Amino acid sequence: MSIGRTLWAIPEGFIPSQSLKDADRPLVSHEAACILNAGDTEAHIEIRLYFVDREPAGPYRVSVGARRTLHLRFNELMDPEPVPLDTDYASVFTSDAPIVVQHTRLDSRRSEIALMTTIAYSA
Amino acid sequence: MSIGRTLWAIPEGFIPSQSLKDADRPLVSHEAACILNAGDTEAHIEIRLYFVDREPAGPYRVSVGARRTLHLRFNELMDPEPVPLDTDYASVFTSDAPIVVQHTRLDSRRSEIALMTTIAYSA
Amino acid sequence: MSIGRTLWAIPEGFIPSQSLKDADRPLVSHEAACILNAGDTEAHIEIRLYFVDREPAGPYRVSVGARRTLHLRFNELMDPEPVPLDTDYASVFTSDAPIVVQHTRLDSRRSEIALMTTIAYSA
Amino acid sequence: MSIGRTLWAIPEGFIPSQSLKDADRPLVSHEAACILNAGDTEAHIEIRLYFVDREPAGPYRVSVGARRTLHLRFNELMDPEPVPLDTDYASVFTSDAPIVVQHTRLDSRRSEIALMTTIAYSA
Repeated sequence: MSIGRTLWAIPEGFIPSQSLKDADRPLVSHEAACILNAGDTEAHIEIRLYFVDREPAGPYRVSVGARRTLHLRFNELMDPEPVPLDTDYASVFTSDAPIVVQHTRLDSRRSEIALMTTIAYSA
Repeated sequence: MSIGRTLWAIPEGFIPSQSLKDADRPLVSHEAACILNAGDTEAHIEIRLYFVDREPAGPYRVSVGARRTLHLRFNELMDPEPVPLDTDYASVFTSDAPIVVQHTRLDSRRSEIALMTTIAYSA
Repeated sequence: MSIGRTLWAIPEGFIPSQSLKDADRPLVSHEAACILNAGDTEAHIEIRLYFVDREPAGPYRVSVGARRTLHLRFNELMDPEPVPLDTDYASVFTSDAPIVVQHTRLDSRRSEIALMTTIAYSA
Repeated sequence: MSIGRTLWAIPEGFIPSQSLKDADRPLVSHEAACILNAGDTEAHIEIRLYFVDREPAGPYRVSVGARRTLHLRFNELMDPEPVPLDTDYASVFTSDAPIVVQHTRLDSRRSEIALMTTIAYSA
């Protein structure tokens, strides 16, 4: 089983600093890249972040094992630098094995949650 | 009329265990794969679920008749094992006839509902 | 300017019968297919609806003028038959000129609204 | 690094005139096109808006620098004319360099927010 591509982009990115006060982890505002590696070799992925008015950040490096998924929260990317909050960004993923990437945001700035998702763009 | 592909992936998957207390079935938190078989032969579909830290589950087997749609809720997949709640997963669909797959989540963990959808990734 | 395809599918479809009590038209629960015809000839479109347990309905016929958009609400399709409420369905669009189709649902069954959207699947 | 296409379409467009009364800028109702230019040359982009019952508006012109992103709010497009509120529209983007476009709406007409997003259609 092999499905996917090795180059993906998500133009939308924004991590609000506000969140539900009583939220446990699943309900904390977050932006995620859900990555599927359905193949039989580990995928080594580099992520670069693009901004409005500065040069890109990264590469951030993550690995997804063979036949595994990783639901990566952007606010947990720390090395080489944390993702700034309340700031527009975009992201590009390059992998050495085919993956599929889906973008999801859960927003709990108000008392209720809002959700959005899309399959990322692959080239 | 034939439209679609035979291999589809949805990297995002998460079924919250919480839900609206007074919800009837349409408003219970659920994650669905809406499958369309617009062709003239029944589609036999195998679904495999991928996780963060274990080998895949499945195959789950569903059929969609010729010129029919099936709005499959992941929490109704029981054989060979139920889909774990509050757990990140991803899914891959293989079919013996062309289908189109759309991913939808309705989330009613808070008092209001949130919705998200995307056409799945096809290879 | 010509952009798009002539065959599109939306596997997800569900029009809730409930809605905000005080809603004016923009906030009434609805499911829409936003159609763009950026070309220089009128597009004649046939829509077929697919169900879980009966043969397809349609064709419904709509036209979108050259260089025009139509944000079609499924609950306004009446001929040859209205779209049933609280019922899972899917839709296929065939056009004699290239179009682009985007699926959107606004849901106001609870006191707040929920939104979802995706570009439809094109073949 | 080069990723993307030079022609993009978003059939859905609607800017509600209502919004949260106490909203600061991130929570004001808006419809955005998030544009990523991951390449090494500035992208010059023309945007045309399509309507239900009149000829298209534009071109609006924006630029996105090399290795930059722009999260463009449609309600900030002013030249040659502002985007009408409470009006259905669609949009087409043409660029002289590869870009990726993602459509997002944040809706705060009610007291809570709703979100939706999709990668735009590329030809």
